[in-house]
Amino acid sequence: MNKIITIGREFGSGGREFGRKLAELLAFPYYDREIIAEIAKRTSLSEKYVQNIAEHKPVIPFPIHTGRTFWAVMPDYGQSVQSEQHNIIREVASKSDCVIVGRGADYILREYQPFRIFVYSDMETKITRCRENQSNDYEQSEMTDKELSRRIEQINKSRADYYEFYTGQKWGDKSNYDLLVNTSFIKPDKLAEAVKLVISN
Amino acid sequence: MNKIITIGREFGSGGREFGRKLAELLAFPYYDREIIAEIAKRTSLSEKYVQNIAEHKPVIPFPIHTGRTFWAVMPDYGQSVQSEQHNIIREVASKSDCVIVGRGADYILREYQPFRIFVYSDMETKITRCRENQSNDYEQSEMTDKELSRRIEQINKSRADYYEFYTGQKWGDKSNYDLLVNTSFIKPDKLAEAVKLVISN
Repeated sequence: MNKIITIGREFGSGGREFGRKLAELLAFPYYDREIIAEIAKRTSLSEKYVQNIAEHKPVIPFPIHTGRTFWAVMPDYGQSVQSEQHNIIREVASKSDCVIVGRGADYILREYQPFRIFVYSDMETKITRCRENQSNDYEQSEMTDKELSRRIEQINKSRADYYEFYTGQKWGDKSNYDLLVNTSFIKPDKLAEAVKLVISN
Repeated sequence: MNKIITIGREFGSGGREFGRKLAELLAFPYYDREIIAEIAKRTSLSEKYVQNIAEHKPVIPFPIHTGRTFWAVMPDYGQSVQSEQHNIIREVASKSDCVIVGRGADYILREYQPFRIFVYSDMETKITRCRENQSNDYEQSEMTDKELSRRIEQINKSRADYYEFYTGQKWGDKSNYDLLVNTSFIKPDKLAEAVKLVISN
């Protein structure tokens, strides 16, 4: 069975940087935005639109209650984007060892018994990281720290909602992970080396 | 300022073995039961009695409510054991770098900005570990898996209560730690090497 490493991450805690480094050290393929690009290709929707749908729990236009069961009716695009995302995650896992960031992959691939990592950090570190990476984000560069902090909280709330909607598990709760790391004081490179050491036989 | 590493641990998840190995690799003094022995020496109480008091939140014989404030009145021994434990933890931290297991040391020593680790594991692993270490525990060796599982849960409930009573924080919640590790599939030796790598400059 292929060795799968999944990385859940709070926005601003360096999950992508760490994941890339880890994949490089292990010589594993790395999947993050690549999944969005592939969905866009398969559905002929724009990447921006796909990303918006693929990373949010559905807005439910017609909630239907049947007894105690609650059914979510998604717009057609939402269903096909989620379904493609699920298929692609399963396809890449079946092809080879890999590192997958976000998207509830830890849950979707649970029968692979992936090594499930979650990275988080304090707000000060998140803000600093966002400022460093904001060169292309005009809107963000104009924000005060308070506004940016609120924006980061919103994004993380949305990630938590997405994860909880699709997995029925609590995002960032240790019972769903093998390793949780506060990246406020740990460099992504060093963390990647340590994880490589831990998972090697 | 001395480098302090604190280890919170679920009973049965190998915290002691990991802590000893980490202290050995770093050449740091290691404090766990040593603290109990020192309290016993200072208070002239037996080690067994001290351990029982030092690891449980107080039984409150006379709860007093004053407005919305709740005061815990502990028996004299309880107060002096807790107070000695607090003093000893602060003394050892002020003396040199060290590894301290349990006892809310992460909170007591917060101004040192310790590297705060929490180890946990699934129940199956806990039971296996307890069986391996039970050679001197007649009572435990007679238990069925179900009885042992209940016993492990009780001990961990008691550790959570103790931590929450003295720190006001949630035991095992990632917001209070820098690294949380599920030790179900990771050997203590390997984890110690990885942590050494992460905390080295």
